[in-house]
Amino acid sequence: MTTDQIHIREVGLRDGLQMVSTFLSTEQKLEWCRRMRAAGCTEIEVTSFVPAHIVAQFADAADVARGALAIEGLKASALVPNLKGAQRAFETGLQQVHYVLSASNEHNLKNVRRSTAESVEDFRRIVKFRDESGQRSTALSAGVATAFGCTVAGRVDESAVLDLVSQLLECGADEIAIADTVGYANPAQVRRLMRNVLSLTGDKPVICHFHDTRGLGLANVTAALDVGIRRFDSSLGGLGGCPFAPNATGNINTEDTVFLMESQGLKTGIDIDALLDIRKTLTEWLPNEPFTGAIARAGLPKTCAV
Amino acid sequence: MTTDQIHIREVGLRDGLQMVSTFLSTEQKLEWCRRMRAAGCTEIEVTSFVPAHIVAQFADAADVARGALAIEGLKASALVPNLKGAQRAFETGLQQVHYVLSASNEHNLKNVRRSTAESVEDFRRIVKFRDESGQRSTALSAGVATAFGCTVAGRVDESAVLDLVSQLLECGADEIAIADTVGYANPAQVRRLMRNVLSLTGDKPVICHFHDTRGLGLANVTAALDVGIRRFDSSLGGLGGCPFAPNATGNINTEDTVFLMESQGLKTGIDIDALLDIRKTLTEWLPNEPFTGAIARAGLPKTCAV
Repeated sequence: MTTDQIHIREVGLRDGLQMVSTFLSTEQKLEWCRRMRAAGCTEIEVTSFVPAHIVAQFADAADVARGALAIEGLKASALVPNLKGAQRAFETGLQQVHYVLSASNEHNLKNVRRSTAESVEDFRRIVKFRDESGQRSTALSAGVATAFGCTVAGRVDESAVLDLVSQLLECGADEIAIADTVGYANPAQVRRLMRNVLSLTGDKPVICHFHDTRGLGLANVTAALDVGIRRFDSSLGGLGGCPFAPNATGNINTEDTVFLMESQGLKTGIDIDALLDIRKTLTEWLPNEPFTGAIARAGLPKTCAV
Repeated sequence: MTTDQIHIREVGLRDGLQMVSTFLSTEQKLEWCRRMRAAGCTEIEVTSFVPAHIVAQFADAADVARGALAIEGLKASALVPNLKGAQRAFETGLQQVHYVLSASNEHNLKNVRRSTAESVEDFRRIVKFRDESGQRSTALSAGVATAFGCTVAGRVDESAVLDLVSQLLECGADEIAIADTVGYANPAQVRRLMRNVLSLTGDKPVICHFHDTRGLGLANVTAALDVGIRRFDSSLGGLGGCPFAPNATGNINTEDTVFLMESQGLKTGIDIDALLDIRKTLTEWLPNEPFTGAIARAGLPKTCAV
C-alpha cells in the first residue's frame, strides 16, 4: 500500500502570505515559485482567489496563477472561497483548485458566514460548474478544516469529519485534504482519523495539512506516514503564524518536513540547501515576519546525504 | 507489553544548567526540584558530579543531591563522569546514578579523554565499587550517547550501540539510556534501534534521551512510543541549547513532551500549567538564556483536559 515517494505541496505563497502585511510583488511571488520548482518542488499552492478587499495580498491572484502555469513541471493550484472565486480560478486554467470547509460549523460560520452544510452545497455547485463548462482538466480538491478540533467549538467529532469526507467525495472531489487548522491534533488522533479517511477515499489522493502551533506538527506527520499518508502541505520557513494564537507558529516548516522525510529514506525530490537559499531571500523580502525552522538554525547532520 | 503510564525525567537541572553561564544558587535549584515534584514530576536528574573546575555550575552537587533527597516522593538522580564522581554521588545516598559513554569513540575521546572501551571498564569499576561498599540501594543507569550519529564521527553503527548495551548490561547496569546527544535521530532509525535495544534489556527499564536540535525531537518520541518506550528525559523550557550547534535548540522541552503525552491519553501525572509557572520563574532567574516551547507560546487547546 505504501511507497517511499512523498509529495510536498508548498503553501507558503497562500497560507503563509495571507498572514503577512508586507506585499510581495507578482514577480517576487513568481520568483519564489520558479526557485521552488528548481529546488525540486513540483506542487505549489500559488495564491488564493479570495476577494482583494478581504485579503489585499491576493489582488494579483490571476496574474500569479498564469505566471505559475508557465513554469515547466509545476502543478500550480489555488484556494477558492466560493463559486465566484472558483470561476476566476478556472479562467486561468490552473491544474488544481482547492475548496475548504470547516468540520466545525461554528468555525465555518465565522470564516465564510455560512453553515458547513451550505458549504458542501457550494462545493457541489463548483463541481457542476466545472463539469458543465468543460474544464475537467482542473482537478478539484476538497478540504476539511478544523478536522482535529476547533478554537471556537473545541472538540470536533471524528464521525462528523468522516461524514463530510463522504459527502465531498459524493459531490465529486478529486482529492481530499484533512487540515489541523489550529494545531490541535495529536499523533494517536491522526492515526485513527486518517486510517478511517483512507478507508473512504479509495484511489483518490489524500493530503494532510498540519500546523505546528503546539509543537506536534512533525510528530503528527510521523503518525500520518505510519498509516500510509504520503502527501503533505508545508510552508517554507514556517511562514504564516497562526491567526488564532498570537506569537505561535503556523504551518509546518517545509525544509524541516523535507529533512524529516529524507533523513529516514523517504523521497521528496527536494534539495534542502536550495530551500535554505530561497528562505534567505524570503527573510530579506519580509524582514518583519517570524520564520521558524530547526534545520535553518542547526544545519544538516553530517550523516545526511540530502 | 505497553502501558499508558509515562515516566518523564526532568534533566534541566543537569543537561540544561551545564550549558548556562549564570549560576543558580543551591536554594534556587532545590526550589525548582520542589516545584517540579509539586507539579507531579517524580524523577529529576538534579546535578552532575563533574569536577567544579570543569563545570562550576555543579560545585554544589552534594548539597543539591542531599536537598533533593529530602523531597518526599522524588527519585533524585545525578550524572557522574567517572568512579571518583560516582563515589561522591554514592556518599549522598542518591536513589540513582547515571553514567554515560559515547557510542562514537571519537566523541568519547573528545568528551572524557578515554576510549569507549575504557569507559565500559570504568563503568564496571563503578558497579563493583557500589556493590562492595554495600550501596545497592543506588541504582546504576548506563547511557549510550551519540547512539544515532555523531557530529565528530558522522554515522554510528547500530551494531556498535547494541554491542555496548550488551556490555553495560553484563557489567550490571540497572537501566539503559539511549541518547541522541546531537539531534541526529529520525523516526525510522528510532523505531529500528529501540526495538533492538528492547530485545536485549529484558525487564530492565530503558529510557530515551532526545534532543530537538533538528526539529525531530517529538517525532522521535512518537516513534519510540510506537515500539514500547515509556521513559523519556526532557528539560523544562528546553533549557540548555546544543554545544555542537550554536543557536540551536537542545533537549526536548518538558512541557511540550507532557502535552504530547497527555493530549493522546498517555499519563504523565504532571500538570502543564504548574510547569508553565515554574518556567516563568526560570526565565526570570536566567534572563539571558533562550527558552523553547510551543505550549508556552500558544497555550493549551480548548479540547485538552490536562
